Amino acid sequence: MTAVPTPFNFTLATTDGLARTGVVTTPHGQIETPAFMAVGTQGAVKGITFRDLEEAGSQILLGNTYHLYLRPGDDLIARRGGLHRFIGWNKPILTDSGGYQVFSLAERRTIDETGARFKSHLDGSSHLLTPEKAADIQAQLGSDIAMVLDECLAYPATHESARESMARTLRWAARARARQRQLRDGGADGVVVTNAGQAQFGIVQGGVFPDLRRESAEATVAIGFEGYAIGGLSVGEPPAVMYDIVGQTTPYLPAEQPRYLMGAGTPEDLVESVARGIDMFDCVMPTRNARNGQLFTSEGRINIKNARYAEDDRPPDPECRCYTCRTCSRAYLRHLYMAGEINASTLNTLHNLSFYLDTMSRIRNAIAFGRFADFRRTFLQRVSRPVVASESAE
Amino acid sequence: MTAVPTPFNFTLATTDGLARTGVVTTPHGQIETPAFMAVGTQGAVKGITFRDLEEAGSQILLGNTYHLYLRPGDDLIARRGGLHRFIGWNKPILTDSGGYQVFSLAERRTIDETGARFKSHLDGSSHLLTPEKAADIQAQLGSDIAMVLDECLAYPATHESARESMARTLRWAARARARQRQLRDGGADGVVVTNAGQAQFGIVQGGVFPDLRRESAEATVAIGFEGYAIGGLSVGEPPAVMYDIVGQTTPYLPAEQPRYLMGAGTPEDLVESVARGIDMFDCVMPTRNARNGQLFTSEGRINIKNARYAEDDRPPDPECRCYTCRTCSRAYLRHLYMAGEINASTLNTLHNLSFYLDTMSRIRNAIAFGRFADFRRTFLQRVSRPVVASESAE
Repeated sequence: MTAVPTPFNFTLATTDGLARTGVVTTPHGQIETPAFMAVGTQGAVKGITFRDLEEAGSQILLGNTYHLYLRPGDDLIARRGGLHRFIGWNKPILTDSGGYQVFSLAERRTIDETGARFKSHLDGSSHLLTPEKAADIQAQLGSDIAMVLDECLAYPATHESARESMARTLRWAARARARQRQLRDGGADGVVVTNAGQAQFGIVQGGVFPDLRRESAEATVAIGFEGYAIGGLSVGEPPAVMYDIVGQTTPYLPAEQPRYLMGAGTPEDLVESVARGIDMFDCVMPTRNARNGQLFTSEGRINIKNARYAEDDRPPDPECRCYTCRTCSRAYLRHLYMAGEINASTLNTLHNLSFYLDTMSRIRNAIAFGRFADFRRTFLQRVSRPVVASESAE
Repeated sequence: MTAVPTPFNFTLATTDGLARTGVVTTPHGQIETPAFMAVGTQGAVKGITFRDLEEAGSQILLGNTYHLYLRPGDDLIARRGGLHRFIGWNKPILTDSGGYQVFSLAERRTIDETGARFKSHLDGSSHLLTPEKAADIQAQLGSDIAMVLDECLAYPATHESARESMARTLRWAARARARQRQLRDGGADGVVVTNAGQAQFGIVQGGVFPDLRRESAEATVAIGFEGYAIGGLSVGEPPAVMYDIVGQTTPYLPAEQPRYLMGAGTPEDLVESVARGIDMFDCVMPTRNARNGQLFTSEGRINIKNARYAEDDRPPDPECRCYTCRTCSRAYLRHLYMAGEINASTLNTLHNLSFYLDTMSRIRNAIAFGRFADFRRTFLQRVSRPVVASESAE
């Protein structure tokens, strides 16, 4: 394929084993990789402002096409000049295709070769999401990186159903790519392209079957995208299986393009996937778990609800320098959580995202200095250990 | 009475008619008056962090004794070193006595000369709040300004019941003052005084009856406190009645001490009460209304839920320089509100508090430059006008 003339660019900087650092350039600025993308489902990261998100070290935001399409609508957002302007976030944005939410949130969905028919979880209205429609919506949102619509297979699945689903995802990818080129080159009626430099990533499927993953990767690369994602993992399979499939997929993805593992994961998942050549991640875990009182720390996870923290004057993570850890004790955070204060969500989210983003920064440094193997060993020993082994039993 | 040897101090700076500017000095710093105190009910201002509160211009925080006594408990807070340390707010704090919440939130309350017996709204446990107990709790919280326990009379009330209630509040005030001196001079068993420089304000009651207000003011001043509050207003009476009672009370309060109008009010209430000699205010209106989508602006109030804002790209208040107005459109704020995002509360609260605190700053400047009458006239003309006259009908 010919190179796509967009400002999108990926520069590989250093490698250490299979781990790599690099820089993704987009129309709204650069992202250092490996990167974690905070999830801003409805145009906001639940509980924290964008300035707090930037302070935590976020260089890119993920928006959910399904949610924004249904409310307030991509037409309204396009009339505002696109998602960046509408929400007031002037750094890079990646949007998903909406497919995952159709499979997990929408009601009465039916899938065929055309696309996914579903009813809105908000008002029951009927919708049809096709590969072309997913591209159109994302063109109107004007994200810097758009994703193709893929079929999301339930786990576990047989080899046969995984193969069929993977093949459909490939046909959809070709349609999505054709539509994106049409939008870029001449446009389409009724679609306002709010970001002329939008890149598009393909998605590798194939379940937990290495042969299908290889086939999917090679065929997706043959279509040609600005980057490649691995989808359909972190959906319930054991971590070891996920790591194995990641490791058996990345060799078939171009070294000079970014690789994005969708929907993962725990801090351990990030480190293990970087070790297998992944550059980008997104996950609701740091934000969702924060709202439920679970804090990630350099010494493992703690549940701030626990009575043992009622008179604990230490910060959540003594090694962390985020606003929460600089100004709040565990005792105060527990009080806010027990009292049902909104601020519990804000402060916990700010910490968890800071922890995730600090972890990515430390990963990048470790790779750049050629000591990622040491970092990986030490990190997994410390972070995988709960602060108090018996805590989950309380 | 003899001067109380605490770091508490009030310096009158300028006057303009009955309006005054001044500086309150406390063990945790100074407050410029007239001042608005944001309400931090449970040790947090709902929806915003303390750094956002400081950026909005807040110089003092109000804490609710009733809530903190019940959860996490003043004993626990005293063991943490007091409320300032527990919550990480190192500027002045004023605590109420808990009386108002006993009257408005607690279950099965009975009042007699001893105090108020009630059951917790959280767990139904039985409690007795006396003037001495209210002083003890606040000593353990270590606020910079403590309030005496007063009886909160329902509105409307007869002259006779207002007189009896006012007389009881006076007897309670004397008991509260005696207890506070005991705590200061020698302490009391089981009470940890976490702020040796805590001041104590008396509260003038007397309903809407000028003769009772005068009697209450003179008798409260005779007991002698570091400052004086006007209680029992902003409880349902018409604004004109409130302004009248404030104007008929302040002449009987010492000019050289701070005057605090409890629980008020609208932006108009603040300006009108400053015009009658009030120095300090607190109210949940900017924070509570923010969470319900109502924004105060320099051109009146707007309800961000309204469909007319769906595609309105202007900031909430074009004259405001707060983070929300710098970075968010009405369209985005409406989207966040309709989508049920926590961030709607955060961003709306940040704006409303900024508007209130900016208003206080403008009031102080107007007084200092001798143009408060002009300011008052212009402000009331603009702020009392809804942006769209018919909005409340939609």
